[in-house]
Amino acid sequence: MSDLALVLARLEAGHDRVLEELVEFAAIPSVSTDPAHAADVHAAAAWVAAKLTVAGPLTVNVMPTAGASVVYAEWLGVPDAMTVLIYGHYDVQPEDPIEKWQSPPFTPTLRDGRLYARGVSDDKGPLLIPIKVAEAFFAERGRLPLNVKFLVEGEEEIGSRHLEAFIAEHKDMLAADVVLSADGAMWRSDEPSVTVSNRGLAGLEITLTGAAKDLHSGRHGGSVANPLHAMARLIASLHRPPPDGRVAVPGFYDEVRELSAAERAEIARLPFDERAYLAQVGAPAAVGEPGYSTLERQWTRPTIEVNGMWGGYQGPGTKTIVPSEAHAKITCRLVPDQDPDEVVALVTKHLETNVPPGTTLAIRPGDHGARPAHIARDHTVVKAAEAALEKVYGVRPLIVRMGGTVPMAEYFQRLMGLSTLYFSFSTGDEDFHAPNEFFRVHRLHEGLAAWAHLWEHLGR
Amino acid sequence: MSDLALVLARLEAGHDRVLEELVEFAAIPSVSTDPAHAADVHAAAAWVAAKLTVAGPLTVNVMPTAGASVVYAEWLGVPDAMTVLIYGHYDVQPEDPIEKWQSPPFTPTLRDGRLYARGVSDDKGPLLIPIKVAEAFFAERGRLPLNVKFLVEGEEEIGSRHLEAFIAEHKDMLAADVVLSADGAMWRSDEPSVTVSNRGLAGLEITLTGAAKDLHSGRHGGSVANPLHAMARLIASLHRPPPDGRVAVPGFYDEVRELSAAERAEIARLPFDERAYLAQVGAPAAVGEPGYSTLERQWTRPTIEVNGMWGGYQGPGTKTIVPSEAHAKITCRLVPDQDPDEVVALVTKHLETNVPPGTTLAIRPGDHGARPAHIARDHTVVKAAEAALEKVYGVRPLIVRMGGTVPMAEYFQRLMGLSTLYFSFSTGDEDFHAPNEFFRVHRLHEGLAAWAHLWEHLGR
Repeated sequence: MSDLALVLARLEAGHDRVLEELVEFAAIPSVSTDPAHAADVHAAAAWVAAKLTVAGPLTVNVMPTAGASVVYAEWLGVPDAMTVLIYGHYDVQPEDPIEKWQSPPFTPTLRDGRLYARGVSDDKGPLLIPIKVAEAFFAERGRLPLNVKFLVEGEEEIGSRHLEAFIAEHKDMLAADVVLSADGAMWRSDEPSVTVSNRGLAGLEITLTGAAKDLHSGRHGGSVANPLHAMARLIASLHRPPPDGRVAVPGFYDEVRELSAAERAEIARLPFDERAYLAQVGAPAAVGEPGYSTLERQWTRPTIEVNGMWGGYQGPGTKTIVPSEAHAKITCRLVPDQDPDEVVALVTKHLETNVPPGTTLAIRPGDHGARPAHIARDHTVVKAAEAALEKVYGVRPLIVRMGGTVPMAEYFQRLMGLSTLYFSFSTGDEDFHAPNEFFRVHRLHEGLAAWAHLWEHLGR
Repeated sequence: MSDLALVLARLEAGHDRVLEELVEFAAIPSVSTDPAHAADVHAAAAWVAAKLTVAGPLTVNVMPTAGASVVYAEWLGVPDAMTVLIYGHYDVQPEDPIEKWQSPPFTPTLRDGRLYARGVSDDKGPLLIPIKVAEAFFAERGRLPLNVKFLVEGEEEIGSRHLEAFIAEHKDMLAADVVLSADGAMWRSDEPSVTVSNRGLAGLEITLTGAAKDLHSGRHGGSVANPLHAMARLIASLHRPPPDGRVAVPGFYDEVRELSAAERAEIARLPFDERAYLAQVGAPAAVGEPGYSTLERQWTRPTIEVNGMWGGYQGPGTKTIVPSEAHAKITCRLVPDQDPDEVVALVTKHLETNVPPGTTLAIRPGDHGARPAHIARDHTVVKAAEAALEKVYGVRPLIVRMGGTVPMAEYFQRLMGLSTLYFSFSTGDEDFHAPNEFFRVHRLHEGLAAWAHLWEHLGR
């Protein structure tokens, strides 16, 4: 039995214990967007630090930021080997709409080989994997195959808002050859893949105000502006009318780098069953920018999405009012070479230009803001990841992209010149950011083996 | 001192006691739209019945319906005099947004000659007046000047949904010469007015569904329909683009009876300061149908208003989702000769024709549905009301209209051939259906005197 085989056997023997630990981790409601959960966010940081401490002779620190703490750990015992910086986050999305969960979001529940809980896929399950792999290497060999640094933040779900400053302040401490992200989601649960790019993000929140107070719609209706009508018109103005789903904000596409023919062909070759995809998400039709496939729309085209919109009476029955205010939360997904600040400025200008009469517009910048990020196809770690995944799955992994946003990738690239490899074992269909988020238990097993192979490969 | 003068003096001596009783009445949170307040709605009915019972030798009954009970009382001691049926309601609007109230909505609070509480103006204050006038006549004379029936319902704020059946079943019991409505709101607090028409109402609630569940806007954004975008487009389609504020639903204006030149001139002569009105409601501009004045828009033109619209994430911070559903509550104000069912059918057809791609539309009929109503300008009670108000205020009252809806007026007209005179002492600026609803205490005094004059005049 080879030396790595012993590590892999140890990992396999410990599967049940890892699952138990994940249940414990996912039970912590570390919702970073909600101040009411501040203590839970802190508890999750402490949990991660404790696990890293028992994993082996790592130096572990819980480091304050202006927001949630960063858990940092390192072991640098192989001076001539490369250094990888492992990224993950211990915070989670809010659980609402809570009434749509089949089991409570913070009572992790096993059903049919899946563990259901908020945050279990994004990314507590995937994050736990490299920690347990480190523990297995230390237990088996007393050392790791390469130098490892862990950076686990608590604000990923709110745009990693203090991570940029943290990285800028600790460049020496964080120095590494590459970032390995436990966060990020693999494309499919049954086909391994390596992700080479992700979209950026920009956001804002708007309020339209009509009269100074809610008015009786009988007495006043028809004579003053209704901010809900105004909001509807303003939001509708962001896109061209169907069937043309393009963004209508002037200048929005100006900085978008069009895909090369080769890139489009690579995406077109991927196995993707659009009908099955639509059935899986329960959408009646594919809707988006004309001239692009669904995968191109998700991975390579920018969007404006309204994530929330509200105003007036939402309770049972009827309340006949002309409400005073209407609200909307808006985010944009960005692709190379769009800049978050520039996009927010363009959207702001469009909104200000189109305010319907009788209403006033207030704009608040959103939490998020991240440039799109990518890693070179021929990077050493991309090749190592392909090899590791082939060992575990027996097939060459697909080269894919990611529609979502991980701000840290852009920070590491810009501030430290580091590329990020996404090496996550969650899957895009696992309903993160939605009710009934789950993580496939078999992916936990595959992930443990794959990370062990990856480190061993990179350590050679 | 004339006989009526004694009644008036008794009423004046009892002012403080009436105000105390109103504080007691307004403290009952009888919110009919919210099932959680069912017991409070019942308590308000019992409170009204008790007040009628102590007022004098009235026969008082709390009569069940399929919803909230009707409080009915009668005294028919003058066989050769006319019979008036007095209408009011003991239910109130919901109190939200509760954070905008300066004092708790169900803790009636006196500030600067105004009593603040939910329902105090609409219509607990105005309803209490004729009850106390009956008590004064009985106490002073042992009898009333005419035959009186009281019908006080508990579902006015939810469209009087069981009143139509109640009236249809009790036509003999309710037989009268005219309806006097304590509900309805006078135009101004400083100029008496008689209201001769009101708008009707029709409503519906709609849901647009995209994917079967909330989706991560990074992974899926740009490739499936966002129901908030679709709702914005659908709601925007209900009106023509600014500055033309007309309803864009085909056929919506087909049955609208245009005002005569004389009617428009009568409205144009009314003292109305649009700038002062806009300042009072805090609206930056008058917005509505082109070619009509603000009063014409409020009183004589039909509308479509969105009273509530919502979907997606509304909490603190950001949640990057493409939501599964978007919702809107819609009501229409109707004018002669529009029919609620026909208008709902027109709006439904328009909505169904304009559903954006990738979403499905579900429509639920609203609670409300009432035809517009009016009383002849030369009706006996219009003249009596003018005389009574002139006695109290020393000036001829204005002839005005009402933008709001009182479904019962239409029921009495259609089912029993009865016209309704609005003889309310609330005022349109008293923020009913909004935070900080109030009732002017001096109007309580004026109302008591005016009702006494009106009854005396009609009893001759």
